[in-house]
Amino acid sequence: MPPAARRAPARRTDDLGGDQVEGRQAVLELLTAGRRRTRKVIVADAQDPSELLDAIEREAHGHRVPVSFVSKARMDREARTEGHQGVYALCDPMPTTDLDGLLDAGGRGLPFLLVCDGVTDPRNLGALLRSAECAGVTGVVLPRHRSARLTPAVTKTAAGAIEHLRFAAVGGIPAALQQLDKAGVVSVGLAPESKHSIYDVDLRTAPVALVIGGEERGLASLTRRRCTQVVSIPQHGAIESLNAGVAGAVACFEVARQRR
Amino acid sequence: MPPAARRAPARRTDDLGGDQVEGRQAVLELLTAGRRRTRKVIVADAQDPSELLDAIEREAHGHRVPVSFVSKARMDREARTEGHQGVYALCDPMPTTDLDGLLDAGGRGLPFLLVCDGVTDPRNLGALLRSAECAGVTGVVLPRHRSARLTPAVTKTAAGAIEHLRFAAVGGIPAALQQLDKAGVVSVGLAPESKHSIYDVDLRTAPVALVIGGEERGLASLTRRRCTQVVSIPQHGAIESLNAGVAGAVACFEVARQRR
Repeated sequence: MPPAARRAPARRTDDLGGDQVEGRQAVLELLTAGRRRTRKVIVADAQDPSELLDAIEREAHGHRVPVSFVSKARMDREARTEGHQGVYALCDPMPTTDLDGLLDAGGRGLPFLLVCDGVTDPRNLGALLRSAECAGVTGVVLPRHRSARLTPAVTKTAAGAIEHLRFAAVGGIPAALQQLDKAGVVSVGLAPESKHSIYDVDLRTAPVALVIGGEERGLASLTRRRCTQVVSIPQHGAIESLNAGVAGAVACFEVARQRR
Repeated sequence: MPPAARRAPARRTDDLGGDQVEGRQAVLELLTAGRRRTRKVIVADAQDPSELLDAIEREAHGHRVPVSFVSKARMDREARTEGHQGVYALCDPMPTTDLDGLLDAGGRGLPFLLVCDGVTDPRNLGALLRSAECAGVTGVVLPRHRSARLTPAVTKTAAGAIEHLRFAAVGGIPAALQQLDKAGVVSVGLAPESKHSIYDVDLRTAPVALVIGGEERGLASLTRRRCTQVVSIPQHGAIESLNAGVAGAVACFEVARQRR
C-alpha cells in the first residue's frame, strides 16, 4: 500500500470547527503544537518585519506546510476576523474525545475540566479558553448546541491555547455533569448570585469541573441543579458584575492557587 | 450675582478625558452615579425595546439631562466606538485628585490602588478598570503620557466602573511609587518572568498599590526598581502568557481574597 493511502482513521471531530485559525500567535501555536494537520498558511504581503511572522514561516517550512502570499486587500476579504494580523491557516478541525478521555489527564495531575454552558460570544469563549489553559485546565466540555464553535474569532482570541486543550462535545451539559459525578468529579458552578464563596470550597483533593454559564442568562437551571456546588466570587465594587470571561479566569486561577 | 454665574471652581481634570461615554451600561452608570455633570444623552431611534435604554431615559429625565434622538446612521458616524449600543452621552471630563487624595479611601477600608504603567490599548485599560472596581480598588494612578486616556472605547469597555473610581494623573510612575512608599503603601509590580509568587505575599495588612505594565513591554525598568515587590501569577499551561488585562484582574482579586 503506498504511504499516502495509509492514513490513520480520522478521529471524531464532532463538528467543533477550528479549521480556520487566524492571528499570529494562534497560527504559530497551531504549527509548533503539531497536533493537527495544517494544509496551508496564508500570509499578507508587504507587512512590517515581525519575529512572529518569521517564526511562522520557519515552522511551516519545517513541517512542509505550503505558505502562500496574498495582498492585504485579499486577506481582509478572505480572513473571517478583523484581527487576523496578516496571517491565517487552514487545518484539520479540532478533534474531540469523550468524557472518559478528558478525565485521563495524561500525567498532568488531578483532572481539571472547564464546562461551558452556553457561552455564545466567540471572543468571550476564546478569552476564557486562553485563561483556562494558562491556569492548567486539562479538558474542555462544550455543548454541541447553544455554544460558540471554534470559529476563527475564537481561535484568534484564544491565541493558540486550543492547540493544548482537549475537547469533548456533549449533547447536554446536565447529563454530562451526572456522568462526571459518577466518575468522582466535583462540579463547581459559577453564579454571581450565589451566597457561597468559591474561596470556602476545597478544590485541592478531587478532580474538579468548573461550570461557566452564558453571558446573558448564566447557568441554565437544570445545569445548576446538577452541579455539586454553586459558588460566586465575592464582589467589592459598585457596578453590577464582573465580565463573564474574567470571572471564569479568576475561578480557574483559584483552582490553580489551591492546588499549588 | 445671578445663579448661573455662581459656578463652583472647576475641579482639576488633568486631561484624562472621559467626556464622551458610550454604551448602555456605561451611560446608565454615568447618570446614576451622578458624580459628573452630563450635558446631553444621545439615543439612536428605532431600536428594539430595552430595559437599559428605558432606565437611561428615566435617569436622564430625573436629572434634567436633555435626551435627543438621532438616526442609527448618524449615531454610527458620530459615536467614536463600534460598540455604542445605540447610546452615548456628553459630560464633564473625569476629575482627578492627587496621590494623597487617592489614599483617603473614604471609609472603604485599607487603600487599594491600581497603578497602570503604560497600558496603551483602550480595551485592555477599560476591561482592567472594570475588573479592578469589582475587586474593590479604591483609586487608579495613570501616567499623563504613555497611557490610554479615558477615551470612548475605554468608557464603553469599563461599563460604568470609571464613575466609581478615583483617578490621579501623574508625571511619572517611578516618582509616584516613591511618594506612595513614603506614605506607607506597599507597591506590588506584576511581571510574568518574576519567580516570586503573588500568593506568597501578604497583601492583608498594609495599603497596597498593584502595578500593571503595558501590553508589549511590561513594567518599565525604573518602575520595576521602585516597586516594593515584583511578583508573578504562577502559570500552568503551555502557551506563553496570560492576557495582561486578565492577569491584572486575577491579581486584583487575590488582594480581595486575602483581605476578605
